[in-house]
Amino acid sequence: MKETIGRDERLLALMVRTPDEPGTLHELTRVILDHRANITYVDIAERREDYSTVYFELEDVGAPDELIGDLKTLDIVLALERAPSFTKVYGKRIIVVGGGAQVGQVVVGAVAEADRHNIRGEKISIDTIPLIGEEDLAAAVRAVARLPRAVALVLAGALMGRDIARAVHEIREKGIVVLSLNMPGSVPDAADLVVSDPIQCGVMAVMAVSSSARFDIRLQRGRRY
Amino acid sequence: MKETIGRDERLLALMVRTPDEPGTLHELTRVILDHRANITYVDIAERREDYSTVYFELEDVGAPDELIGDLKTLDIVLALERAPSFTKVYGKRIIVVGGGAQVGQVVVGAVAEADRHNIRGEKISIDTIPLIGEEDLAAAVRAVARLPRAVALVLAGALMGRDIARAVHEIREKGIVVLSLNMPGSVPDAADLVVSDPIQCGVMAVMAVSSSARFDIRLQRGRRY
Repeated sequence: MKETIGRDERLLALMVRTPDEPGTLHELTRVILDHRANITYVDIAERREDYSTVYFELEDVGAPDELIGDLKTLDIVLALERAPSFTKVYGKRIIVVGGGAQVGQVVVGAVAEADRHNIRGEKISIDTIPLIGEEDLAAAVRAVARLPRAVALVLAGALMGRDIARAVHEIREKGIVVLSLNMPGSVPDAADLVVSDPIQCGVMAVMAVSSSARFDIRLQRGRRY
Repeated sequence: MKETIGRDERLLALMVRTPDEPGTLHELTRVILDHRANITYVDIAERREDYSTVYFELEDVGAPDELIGDLKTLDIVLALERAPSFTKVYGKRIIVVGGGAQVGQVVVGAVAEADRHNIRGEKISIDTIPLIGEEDLAAAVRAVARLPRAVALVLAGALMGRDIARAVHEIREKGIVVLSLNMPGSVPDAADLVVSDPIQCGVMAVMAVSSSARFDIRLQRGRRY
């Protein structure tokens, strides 16, 4: 990661409406490249019958107004507007997966704790994915490493092992912090930290990723509460 | 939206690791355009000191192996792997924003109800964004319309009005279903549906977006429970 200081000021977020057809992203990125701007975030926010909307976050934009002007000259640009950056709105994401009963309780703890940190200026959001079955769950765990802004995963179930445990090892290597409820199966052994009470598990997940908490996950690895 | 039938079979999801520098997306999209494939989803999944990972979902890919082969010949492609599609893993997203106490209870209802629908073959996930302050909240509400796969928003607070209500009207026009708890302020009047109990509000949000529920939000607009 590059230095954060000064980045926000030169960060430009844009919503660009184009026809939904091959080649539009290639044309937009040509103009962005001409301005030597770096694309730090991109997604397709809307897909309709007659158009798509692409959302970009760009850094190192020397002359934002000129870049916007150049994009607007493209035939494929139907509309363009500036937007506040996602990172500013959503911040870090904690993902909770497992069975509905336990996922709900983990989120209660995590959301309450995130409020306390957000009031002190952080931005931490909690996302849940209620899935069933080992195959689904392993795929969801692996997908967490590809989710923008995801920093931690909580496994909230009553039986998880085998391929899910392998997926946990894979995403830990990619820098995702993994917490698990105490449960049968090999997942607790694969996680950074095991917490029996779902509400406390949600609270600790937030503490582990917060920049304002004194909690250090490195000192807690392998522990069970 | 194009027809869903047959789309999945020709959908190709790729993780591509490149240096984190201007121009990489432009070069990747050139190869994708050469194959006349349409980019239906794209995001930057990882940003590290020495590389970035871009995630693509492509449709109408005639010859996936050739496309992958052509991408691999690029100097900027450090690694490339196929992945399961996000839509398949995550499905529709319901976003809950507001104060921690109430957000937690709405999610308990929504996650439990989503489990019931997911067991019947749907994919519905619940995401939360605990924020404070009118300005933050209005920005978060507006951002929901740009979030990939977001279909509904629940406003879970005890006082919301003014610019938040304007933002609610804007995203409803973009097709997002909005539910609100019963509360002071103009937001309940701006929402599609008002539900006093947070757990029931979460349950109804899932019913409103589920394809397997008998609940029809069009018949419920403007009602309060």
